[in-house]
Amino acid sequence: MATVKLWTDADEDSSPAVKSVFDDIRATRKSDFINNFWRGLANDPPLLKRTWESLKAVMAVDGALDPLTREMIYIAVSTANSCSYCIHSHTTAARAHGMSDAQHAELLAVIGLAAQTNHLVTAMQIPVDEAFLVRP
Amino acid sequence: MATVKLWTDADEDSSPAVKSVFDDIRATRKSDFINNFWRGLANDPPLLKRTWESLKAVMAVDGALDPLTREMIYIAVSTANSCSYCIHSHTTAARAHGMSDAQHAELLAVIGLAAQTNHLVTAMQIPVDEAFLVRP
Amino acid sequence: MATVKLWTDADEDSSPAVKSVFDDIRATRKSDFINNFWRGLANDPPLLKRTWESLKAVMAVDGALDPLTREMIYIAVSTANSCSYCIHSHTTAARAHGMSDAQHAELLAVIGLAAQTNHLVTAMQIPVDEAFLVRP
Amino acid sequence: MATVKLWTDADEDSSPAVKSVFDDIRATRKSDFINNFWRGLANDPPLLKRTWESLKAVMAVDGALDPLTREMIYIAVSTANSCSYCIHSHTTAARAHGMSDAQHAELLAVIGLAAQTNHLVTAMQIPVDEAFLVRP
Amino acid sequence: MATVKLWTDADEDSSPAVKSVFDDIRATRKSDFINNFWRGLANDPPLLKRTWESLKAVMAVDGALDPLTREMIYIAVSTANSCSYCIHSHTTAARAHGMSDAQHAELLAVIGLAAQTNHLVTAMQIPVDEAFLVRP
Amino acid sequence: MATVKLWTDADEDSSPAVKSVFDDIRATRKSDFINNFWRGLANDPPLLKRTWESLKAVMAVDGALDPLTREMIYIAVSTANSCSYCIHSHTTAARAHGMSDAQHAELLAVIGLAAQTNHLVTAMQIPVDEAFLVRP
Repeated sequence: MATVKLWTDADEDSSPAVKSVFDDIRATRKSDFINNFWRGLANDPPLLKRTWESLKAVMAVDGALDPLTREMIYIAVSTANSCSYCIHSHTTAARAHGMSDAQHAELLAVIGLAAQTNHLVTAMQIPVDEAFLVRP
Repeated sequence: MATVKLWTDADEDSSPAVKSVFDDIRATRKSDFINNFWRGLANDPPLLKRTWESLKAVMAVDGALDPLTREMIYIAVSTANSCSYCIHSHTTAARAHGMSDAQHAELLAVIGLAAQTNHLVTAMQIPVDEAFLVRP
Repeated sequence: MATVKLWTDADEDSSPAVKSVFDDIRATRKSDFINNFWRGLANDPPLLKRTWESLKAVMAVDGALDPLTREMIYIAVSTANSCSYCIHSHTTAARAHGMSDAQHAELLAVIGLAAQTNHLVTAMQIPVDEAFLVRP
Repeated sequence: MATVKLWTDADEDSSPAVKSVFDDIRATRKSDFINNFWRGLANDPPLLKRTWESLKAVMAVDGALDPLTREMIYIAVSTANSCSYCIHSHTTAARAHGMSDAQHAELLAVIGLAAQTNHLVTAMQIPVDEAFLVRP
Repeated sequence: MATVKLWTDADEDSSPAVKSVFDDIRATRKSDFINNFWRGLANDPPLLKRTWESLKAVMAVDGALDPLTREMIYIAVSTANSCSYCIHSHTTAARAHGMSDAQHAELLAVIGLAAQTNHLVTAMQIPVDEAFLVRP
Repeated sequence: MATVKLWTDADEDSSPAVKSVFDDIRATRKSDFINNFWRGLANDPPLLKRTWESLKAVMAVDGALDPLTREMIYIAVSTANSCSYCIHSHTTAARAHGMSDAQHAELLAVIGLAAQTNHLVTAMQIPVDEAFLVRP
């Protein structure tokens, strides 16, 4: 259960600032579905707007990384931060961008391996090699 | 400074188990350079061998994700786990696999955005939408 | 479901050490309600007592920070540590200390922003500026 | 050592987009000092601009929380995320906003207590009390 | 709800690679019970096999640490990583290896104390004493 | 560099409250050495005293777990929390309690494996098996 109110479609009509962002989410995604994250952020319209604008700028652009790669990076960070909701929503998004079972399995394998070596390095307090300090 | 001994090339000759793994690292990477992570793991030859075998299986294969994508996922996990050594070594590896400045910048933008929304979701304790529970 | 027994009011009567702490919690908070955290700690009466004494010393005093600020700092740490129970209980406590919707919204905005810049800094391994090493 | 180039004042002149943000940072803070975080972000001018705009919106406003409270929340999150740079820079900022030794000490006490109870709750997997699910 | 399919006993028969690992789990543990972790990993038979082989090598051996100590270390890491499933499964395993209520209580006390001092150290950015850099 | 003053032996004489704790640390440990953690906490004498009392109660007692096991659990938590100072100080303490190279190596192997399976479980969002909800 959330610690904040989740705005319903009815609530949305009471705030032009919220409605404007929700409408842009719907138009950008070509779908009427507004997921709970945005319904929670609606309690703070400027935060809602800034967050959505950042997400559009980072995730919806035609950038240097393809959209599926960006979603998999999102899943990786969300896993290391133990954010259950985020893992669910971005796994769904990655699937929508065509993530295959084989790609998902390989993503999991990299995440698991990285966590293992991260902890081994940290426990041993391995000093950074000189070679890694020079930018290639 | 490390909490374990970092094996030098001289030490390596005293242990056939360590030497065998180090030789495979050199052959696989076509380079004489053995970075400090492996020099720390050498204190436990079976752990050294298992970790290297896992790394080869996950990172060096011709798999469903290209090598650069795998390195960027590694950086993402290492960042969320605050592993400085891992960020340095895998940023170097990603550069070696051709990561451009633009791709690095976009990777950072996704990592930062994911961390921000992870914490917002967690602080609000947003419940998972029904739509995310059905596998697409 | 918990990994330890949660002590009921009936269990409490069987241990004078537990009952003594529970009674102090009730007297300090002027309420009969003992939340589940203390019911779990009751399995280890010395840990229960130490934890409650620390909480009273830190949270219930007339100190340099007002009680609401302390609760918001608690929420911030609990969010970064992904502790769902802690977020729920301390959001309730902050509300009881008068946290407004606007203050909660701003707390969330700071938490989210801090997480974003934390991860950006970590991924870039930004060195500490000289200016920050001198105490003002 | 950073994984990205840290832009010097000379570099800054080569990019109007970077110079524009740096100038706004100087004007807003009434200081010529640009700390390393912004010098790292300069490699991605749109990310630099978005991050600075968010920081101004969240930290520099006349909002529901006073500036010192916001800086202490920032320190709390940065500690739980193990971001050394962030702890240094925001402790400096909190000092600049008047944080006393007593307030700093109390901040540390709350952070330490929260971490302890966070981990105890997580290890015991304490279920959320019904009372915490109702918003006051 | 999982983000991947959890393999049933019926599914298992369709994949000799999965069946072979499941059979070894059953034989090693002298039990027909296959817990959900392995049913999720079954989507990637090589990852399933590598993970099980690592677990056997680390946890099931007659090594330098007794099995109960290993399970308690596992619980400690899982708590700090906020992995609810892992805490449940390894608390069950530790109980099966004879963990008493008193030992569990003491484990929790150490975990809680470590988290508290970890965060205090990090917030104060305490430099490592020279004495700790020399291996005893 | 620390964010707080590290109290020297000379400073200590100016505060009876600090001197009393430092003297107890020296007497309990049968050593004149006061490590930096306590020198940082000295800025807040009540926090210094509470933390030392907790540490004595948890770590220095003749309890259900032997001292070396407690130190290894401490290292495990400190690793997952990325606390470099804590890893150094408790690895030193574990060595002083007799941790062998083989035990250290096995500790690292368990920490690394736990981190790997923690992340795999979290990324797959594996539901807790019914069997783990029943206390053995």
